[in-house]
Amino acid sequence: MLIGNAVIGQSGGPTAAINATLSGVVLGCKEIGVKTIYGACNGIEGLLEERMCDLGALLKDEKQHRILEQTPAAALGSCRKKMPTPDKDPDTYSRLLEIFKKYDIRYFFYIGGNDSMDTVYKLSSYMNGAGYEMRVMGVPKTIDCDLAETDHTPGYGSAAKYIATTMQEILRDTAVYTVKAVTIVEIMGRDAGWLTAAASLPSLYSDVTPDLVYLPEVYFNYDKFYEDLAKAFEKHPNVVVAVSEGIRTEDGRYVGEGTQSGVADVFGHKYLSGTGKTLELAVKEKFGCKVRSIELNLPQRCAGHLQSKTDIDESVEIGKAAAIHAASGETGKMACFVRESTNPYKCVIKTEDISKIANEVRSVPRNFINERGNNVTKECLEYIAPLIQGENLNIYENGLPKHFVIER
Amino acid sequence: MLIGNAVIGQSGGPTAAINATLSGVVLGCKEIGVKTIYGACNGIEGLLEERMCDLGALLKDEKQHRILEQTPAAALGSCRKKMPTPDKDPDTYSRLLEIFKKYDIRYFFYIGGNDSMDTVYKLSSYMNGAGYEMRVMGVPKTIDCDLAETDHTPGYGSAAKYIATTMQEILRDTAVYTVKAVTIVEIMGRDAGWLTAAASLPSLYSDVTPDLVYLPEVYFNYDKFYEDLAKAFEKHPNVVVAVSEGIRTEDGRYVGEGTQSGVADVFGHKYLSGTGKTLELAVKEKFGCKVRSIELNLPQRCAGHLQSKTDIDESVEIGKAAAIHAASGETGKMACFVRESTNPYKCVIKTEDISKIANEVRSVPRNFINERGNNVTKECLEYIAPLIQGENLNIYENGLPKHFVIER
Repeated sequence: MLIGNAVIGQSGGPTAAINATLSGVVLGCKEIGVKTIYGACNGIEGLLEERMCDLGALLKDEKQHRILEQTPAAALGSCRKKMPTPDKDPDTYSRLLEIFKKYDIRYFFYIGGNDSMDTVYKLSSYMNGAGYEMRVMGVPKTIDCDLAETDHTPGYGSAAKYIATTMQEILRDTAVYTVKAVTIVEIMGRDAGWLTAAASLPSLYSDVTPDLVYLPEVYFNYDKFYEDLAKAFEKHPNVVVAVSEGIRTEDGRYVGEGTQSGVADVFGHKYLSGTGKTLELAVKEKFGCKVRSIELNLPQRCAGHLQSKTDIDESVEIGKAAAIHAASGETGKMACFVRESTNPYKCVIKTEDISKIANEVRSVPRNFINERGNNVTKECLEYIAPLIQGENLNIYENGLPKHFVIER
Repeated sequence: MLIGNAVIGQSGGPTAAINATLSGVVLGCKEIGVKTIYGACNGIEGLLEERMCDLGALLKDEKQHRILEQTPAAALGSCRKKMPTPDKDPDTYSRLLEIFKKYDIRYFFYIGGNDSMDTVYKLSSYMNGAGYEMRVMGVPKTIDCDLAETDHTPGYGSAAKYIATTMQEILRDTAVYTVKAVTIVEIMGRDAGWLTAAASLPSLYSDVTPDLVYLPEVYFNYDKFYEDLAKAFEKHPNVVVAVSEGIRTEDGRYVGEGTQSGVADVFGHKYLSGTGKTLELAVKEKFGCKVRSIELNLPQRCAGHLQSKTDIDESVEIGKAAAIHAASGETGKMACFVRESTNPYKCVIKTEDISKIANEVRSVPRNFINERGNNVTKECLEYIAPLIQGENLNIYENGLPKHFVIER
């Protein structure tokens, strides 16, 4: 094995499972015999400023790992730095090489989504020709579940569990009155509808389900939407709609960027509404009934108190696996899930070339969406369902979940 | 004891604990020997249509009670019917009397908030002079915690636990980047700031806390707000603000009013939901930095998956107590909590005349808010803290909390 130290960074948007993966990479590094396990504060941005901590010293026992795993958002801090190519900014790369040499860093693990895998791709390519032996590995993380080459992504299962649970609660709440009303729930997902699809999970097991579900994979059409609503009202007075923030009309425009209603705020500016708000105003105008829009917002990506046990266990395992694959000589790769079976659920971990993953997007396949384009299929839900199973019960202190804090 | 049957109704906005109280009233009715325990579907509205179910038959064992207690929102359905006075609408009252006689109903329990206690007040007054012996009891329910004569209300503790936990998670999430940004979290509460106060609970125990907290009890001033923000930026780049939906400027106007249609409900309450959005736009204009507003919305009142054990236990107990007090001959009363001590926490249950409670509002006292009016005091948080203690761990099935369903 290549002897030396490791540095781990977290990048992109937070999730409820990104720290479980961090915990896993640390466990893996311990297992393969890495000497010092550094954490880079605020990803590559902090690494360039040599802002690092000693993760091996911070995570001494199992309980500390356990608390880190239940802590949402990136404990090391994150960044959204877009890495230039080496020919456009050679200084950044030589600076990184200098830091790696200074700290004898031979392993670099980057936990992140699409953009972070682009960083891993560029950095691993550069290091291959830099005459300094090093392993650069990507570890997936994104609630969006839209990374290529992996069955799903760590963080998605917990977000899906949060969305399905919250949707089930909202369905209970909205059903208490007999008055005609529409509730529109806006869910994250700019390009892929995996998160919004999870809103339909209650329909697999219970008596409640959102009436209509719109994903960005299918163009949104207002006339069809009004028809769908009218039909839903025939069944019951409380209609609930789940919608991806990224739905677009056929002209390619995001529904949320439309200011068709022209509502102005107190400052006289046009109300820059989100997707849910835009639809709320449209439905109010069309049907004249009570309409409410709910944006699930940040909690869907940081609800550490409602983690899927399957997701957290897998997030730890994929972190460990990345370290073990690196120790065996791999570089420029990302650890991926391969599903062997859905019922019973079984996934294994392999690695894939990062070049196949960086900047690609994995959408919800068309056959996972019904013909009308207003809900997902049972097959889709059965595919998602295993990922939300089990509860990673938090350790609480004084009535609140305990969080692991890294000073940075 | 007065021999006969009982009917229980739920009214007003849902909470995560209103079904725990329903469970408690049923347990109490069984204890005092009520024969048939009816549930009124959709409160007084459904009762007038004789839409009832047999709760005693539906709740046969402890597990069923347990699942009902973890189910959010009113399992019987709710209503927002404004009861007229008997002289204005004698028909409604004589119709109710007729139904009570028909079903031999001698006990009427109404679980609700302010407006529901107004119904209890009017109905109990009417029944006193109707020549039909009957007990009419109110059982409190509201996440707002603003009912008079009770130390706090069932449902508040769970909502406060949800708000504090979610705020702690949002604080973790927003702290990951180094870019200057403001996050505004809008919390329910038209007239009382109890819910928003709970957003500061993490400051009692952890390293994170919202920087600024604005309650409706103090007039909101934009210039002071901008000064507060500038000061907060001196400490860190990520500033988090918690704000009640009901904050008003000194001229009496709601901050959120500008973006609202001004629709009022049957009680004359204005619908508010644009407070966070209004402030988001204001801060963006003033500081030019990244600003995000998050409306916690319905989940704060229906997050059954994150109930406070203290709240659920008390919610069951106050339901039971209402039945027992009714059996001992009381009528026209509401069961109330009386706090005997905060440390160690101890509350007992007594009853109060409904006339003292109906249409009154209990605000956050001024000494629970700091002088500047931009946060709550430690004394306030220590008062709230006992109410969020303990977790009422849900029973899950297929990865989702199990809910109790009453066909209606």
